[in-house]
Amino acid sequence: MINAAIIGANGYTGKELIKILHSHPSVNLKYCASRKEAGTKIRDTFIEFYRLGDMKFCDTAEEEAMLKDTDVVFSALPHAASAELMLPYIKKGIKVVDLSADFRYKSLELYEKTYKVVHPCPQLLEQAVYGLPELNFDKIAAAKIVGNPGCYTTCSILPLYPLLSESVINSKGIIIDAKSGVSGAGRKAETSLLFNEVSEDFKAYGVTTHRHTSEIEEVLSLATKKETVVCFTPHLLPVKRGILSTIYAPLNKNITENDISDIYSKYYAGAPFVSVYTDGSLPQLKSVAYTNDCHIGFKLDKKNNQIIIISCLDNILKGASGQAVQNMNIMFGLNQTAGLLFGNI
Amino acid sequence: MINAAIIGANGYTGKELIKILHSHPSVNLKYCASRKEAGTKIRDTFIEFYRLGDMKFCDTAEEEAMLKDTDVVFSALPHAASAELMLPYIKKGIKVVDLSADFRYKSLELYEKTYKVVHPCPQLLEQAVYGLPELNFDKIAAAKIVGNPGCYTTCSILPLYPLLSESVINSKGIIIDAKSGVSGAGRKAETSLLFNEVSEDFKAYGVTTHRHTSEIEEVLSLATKKETVVCFTPHLLPVKRGILSTIYAPLNKNITENDISDIYSKYYAGAPFVSVYTDGSLPQLKSVAYTNDCHIGFKLDKKNNQIIIISCLDNILKGASGQAVQNMNIMFGLNQTAGLLFGNI
Amino acid sequence: MINAAIIGANGYTGKELIKILHSHPSVNLKYCASRKEAGTKIRDTFIEFYRLGDMKFCDTAEEEAMLKDTDVVFSALPHAASAELMLPYIKKGIKVVDLSADFRYKSLELYEKTYKVVHPCPQLLEQAVYGLPELNFDKIAAAKIVGNPGCYTTCSILPLYPLLSESVINSKGIIIDAKSGVSGAGRKAETSLLFNEVSEDFKAYGVTTHRHTSEIEEVLSLATKKETVVCFTPHLLPVKRGILSTIYAPLNKNITENDISDIYSKYYAGAPFVSVYTDGSLPQLKSVAYTNDCHIGFKLDKKNNQIIIISCLDNILKGASGQAVQNMNIMFGLNQTAGLLFGNI
Amino acid sequence: MINAAIIGANGYTGKELIKILHSHPSVNLKYCASRKEAGTKIRDTFIEFYRLGDMKFCDTAEEEAMLKDTDVVFSALPHAASAELMLPYIKKGIKVVDLSADFRYKSLELYEKTYKVVHPCPQLLEQAVYGLPELNFDKIAAAKIVGNPGCYTTCSILPLYPLLSESVINSKGIIIDAKSGVSGAGRKAETSLLFNEVSEDFKAYGVTTHRHTSEIEEVLSLATKKETVVCFTPHLLPVKRGILSTIYAPLNKNITENDISDIYSKYYAGAPFVSVYTDGSLPQLKSVAYTNDCHIGFKLDKKNNQIIIISCLDNILKGASGQAVQNMNIMFGLNQTAGLLFGNI
Repeated sequence: MINAAIIGANGYTGKELIKILHSHPSVNLKYCASRKEAGTKIRDTFIEFYRLGDMKFCDTAEEEAMLKDTDVVFSALPHAASAELMLPYIKKGIKVVDLSADFRYKSLELYEKTYKVVHPCPQLLEQAVYGLPELNFDKIAAAKIVGNPGCYTTCSILPLYPLLSESVINSKGIIIDAKSGVSGAGRKAETSLLFNEVSEDFKAYGVTTHRHTSEIEEVLSLATKKETVVCFTPHLLPVKRGILSTIYAPLNKNITENDISDIYSKYYAGAPFVSVYTDGSLPQLKSVAYTNDCHIGFKLDKKNNQIIIISCLDNILKGASGQAVQNMNIMFGLNQTAGLLFGNI
Repeated sequence: MINAAIIGANGYTGKELIKILHSHPSVNLKYCASRKEAGTKIRDTFIEFYRLGDMKFCDTAEEEAMLKDTDVVFSALPHAASAELMLPYIKKGIKVVDLSADFRYKSLELYEKTYKVVHPCPQLLEQAVYGLPELNFDKIAAAKIVGNPGCYTTCSILPLYPLLSESVINSKGIIIDAKSGVSGAGRKAETSLLFNEVSEDFKAYGVTTHRHTSEIEEVLSLATKKETVVCFTPHLLPVKRGILSTIYAPLNKNITENDISDIYSKYYAGAPFVSVYTDGSLPQLKSVAYTNDCHIGFKLDKKNNQIIIISCLDNILKGASGQAVQNMNIMFGLNQTAGLLFGNI
Repeated sequence: MINAAIIGANGYTGKELIKILHSHPSVNLKYCASRKEAGTKIRDTFIEFYRLGDMKFCDTAEEEAMLKDTDVVFSALPHAASAELMLPYIKKGIKVVDLSADFRYKSLELYEKTYKVVHPCPQLLEQAVYGLPELNFDKIAAAKIVGNPGCYTTCSILPLYPLLSESVINSKGIIIDAKSGVSGAGRKAETSLLFNEVSEDFKAYGVTTHRHTSEIEEVLSLATKKETVVCFTPHLLPVKRGILSTIYAPLNKNITENDISDIYSKYYAGAPFVSVYTDGSLPQLKSVAYTNDCHIGFKLDKKNNQIIIISCLDNILKGASGQAVQNMNIMFGLNQTAGLLFGNI
Repeated sequence: MINAAIIGANGYTGKELIKILHSHPSVNLKYCASRKEAGTKIRDTFIEFYRLGDMKFCDTAEEEAMLKDTDVVFSALPHAASAELMLPYIKKGIKVVDLSADFRYKSLELYEKTYKVVHPCPQLLEQAVYGLPELNFDKIAAAKIVGNPGCYTTCSILPLYPLLSESVINSKGIIIDAKSGVSGAGRKAETSLLFNEVSEDFKAYGVTTHRHTSEIEEVLSLATKKETVVCFTPHLLPVKRGILSTIYAPLNKNITENDISDIYSKYYAGAPFVSVYTDGSLPQLKSVAYTNDCHIGFKLDKKNNQIIIISCLDNILKGASGQAVQNMNIMFGLNQTAGLLFGNI
């Protein structure tokens, strides 16, 4: 059994990690740390976890204990704070899956420009692996530090990577119009996230300035060896879970829908959590909500010489905690689907 | 034109007062005071009020100005704080409609027991009038201080008062099972009110302990001269607006549905905002949401010797700000419907 | 492996049966029959079931095949039609779990009065077992025909049965104010169930006339040997899943909250899907949605000499398909939780 | 007073027309015709209209009566059926506002290709006026037949027309990613529109094939005298009302945000229902829901040499029935805002 700890366990990604790891056949969930909720019963914060009984949040400061008997640490802390708190675990050789942005970038400059902070341990960026299993399986298997991808980025990179790699689409002029459920904003007591503010509303935010833009661009550029530039526009959907992205990419060549299907098959045949719709149908949010799947469909728009792609996933699962556990599975040599085949059939 | 001020204008009842008073044909909305938002544009807080232009929240401390040229003050402040801030206006002879609980009770003891505070000006309780126009029209017309009723209380008293007065139902053993939209909880940055917590959920709260119980009991007891005892259970509905109460009351005598209809007609024939369904149909939330109406329907349940009443209203309108303006209309000798005939037809 | 068939598989209870049985470790889901959808891919009707691949609905008329190699049949057909279609399976000795009302009643007269139809096979009512495992475990284990309880009835009987049996509450004067999510109305193309009609609305329906009243009364009367009379009022909640009932029952004796907890423990200590809150807290809809659990909490209301109970469950799971599979587990000697421990922890 | 009739009054646009015209100071709503609901009380179909009392739907066949004393007819019928039923009114010289697509197109070929029907009276296309007051005020004032624009088209044309006219953006390569509330799909008893299907879901539909594409292109091409080509992708939002479009348009020249603001001001200074945000903020759905307003905001995306525009409106009001009444106001020489200044302030 793998002894696991979650640091920053009182948010929505922490909640989902608790749920998955608690039921995971190869994991012993030892520590759920939260500075804010330390000492209180987990089920008082997350009333759905009635059966957790008296299990309590511990304090993030209980480092000594955690350092002693933990095999893997999941960090659901905010950026900058996260890398700093992970340092002792990393030094001790404990495997780390970091859900913040701290270990996602190769370019320190890009990270610091995007997040407007000084990175607490830039020397570790090189050895950290970007935790997108469909791109980096082998590296993840050998990694000590995994930077778990952002939700919007996963939903953008998975559909774009094969088409960029095969030069089907141009690496400039890509538009990603993304729509996310409210859990993406986190479990924060903010007026703007109240039921009465969000329900029956819909809005764009972070237009031209959202941080995930640079993450998408860096990962795609490195993976395809083509400098890739995207326009990324997120919106807030009045639903609890899920991201659906409508992607417009200029075509580079004459190509059929069958060709596109073949390319996706080539890249994702062995990917248990990526499903590409090859019959012209398109996935929708409920196709993937509460699963660790990413579904991809597409239409060729010959009139405008572009492809329109619909990709969707659950922002808390394949977009965060589910993918984090998938990474853990790979890091420990387990089947990557272990503990993750819940939700739809 | 009546010069009006709102104190505590940055919550949901304040917002609705701004909307109604801004469009009211006989009102000049001069002051929207909010300690928290003082100096900021109202439309930055309430983005729906785009056309308000540059109108700003003023500070609650700008008392001197407000004392000079205000004819009526609406207080949307919390209890205890409210009465205290209203004192200078009351002393100056300015009419006050207080939406807190501070001027609703006749019994000081009951108020202090219920709200667990010391009343800042108990000497004013006697002259204050309970602002339910369907019971107290004449008193309101002559009042300087109106204690605006609670939302649940309005929705409880309107259906029960005629039947209790005519001794159709027993004054003991009444059960009020009430369900309210989330705006009833106010515009507070609390985790429990987040979209992701409330959506797809439903719960009871304040079971056996909700404060509106004593208000319902006192008003009904005084109005009917029968000591009335109720069991009141509120629930939180995942909707933005509205209260629907299902009321179970033991029958005192053999009576037909026609008799009941006749009684309601007798009491509410002249009440423009109360509609009683006399054809056996029952109102539902959307019958009244976004209007100042209270709708009432009922079924005789002979098997259990009781009447089942469905009453509903918009908690922010007839349950708060709409009723407050109705009270203002009466206090100033206007038609009580002035500025309030919006929403459905 | 148990070969299972679902008849009437294209509604919401059918959908959930497909999901549970497809993942059940001891079941081989052989037939999903639907007259209306016969021959079409299941995933075209239920897009969430992407991974079902090409599995199709068969026709309900393919009886011969089903009679040959089926060990258990689940019927999700409407009442009257259901019993009739089940007859050949029953004659053949195949085990039947009927989700309609056809095998729930012992009194033919009560069934026919309630459902206003002639029962197609009244001679089978006696041998049919009411499928509430917490009351009838042993009988279910030996049964050939199980009448699966209604959703509202399960949510009413589980909290009331122990208190009635121990004479804590009176068997007259019980009020059940129940609120159900929209899936309870079925997957029917009716204007009144459209998103735009239901969202932001709330209403009572079937007041004094809902069919589940007689089912609740018969089962409780038989089980407690006291003629039990209830007032049952259902409401339609704008949520997808779940029932929460607020129950008011007159107390028969002086009793403490500890006594109540002890009684529930005595009755449900061995019931894996019933959780009673003994610390004064109350369950809410999200405590149980998407699980097979029923949660029960309560408050003594000494002022009105009654107990107020909150009970809740997922109407499609413990209220229908989950309970049906629980019954199947018991009928086949499996652990009753087999295939049912999904959802929350 | 203008005598008005609504044909096809039992859908969501009909419902809104009833509401607006019933309260309109210069209108006498004489006929609400619906073949399906003929003879039934309007409030039985639309329970919100409790105060309509006994007013009934008449039959669409009661043409003779309607021809006699009607000054204006609103058609909320489906395309093709609509033009045909409007013919007698048009012949009689009665003014017609047609909410279907039948009188929107100048090119018969484009209409017939788009709607796959034969137009019942192509000879009238020339005299019909496209009812977008911000483009065609004078023509509408003189018109006998107004083709009321589509919801998505209004939300697309209003933000694009000034920028295309001034050659700020290219007339090729425009992408309109639009999201609409469920009322846009109409009041149809279809499984796919049920609360349980739509709630918590989100999807694209009609990708590359939606009919409004050709309407947008024709109107913009005629108005700007530049052949305009757009990619239009609609999505279904789980909200009742409103459309928000995110529009990506390639810039033609170096331009500042101030320049853009100036252009919009030039075109819409006199348009009471169009508000352009000139401070960099962006409108959201609740800015316009339940009003007749269209709000427009924008960001320059220099990196990708494009402008990103957010435009939004209420699909049933400015996108349908509100605009229809605005057109009627103009056709009868009334103030164009008459009866339409409800909703937000």
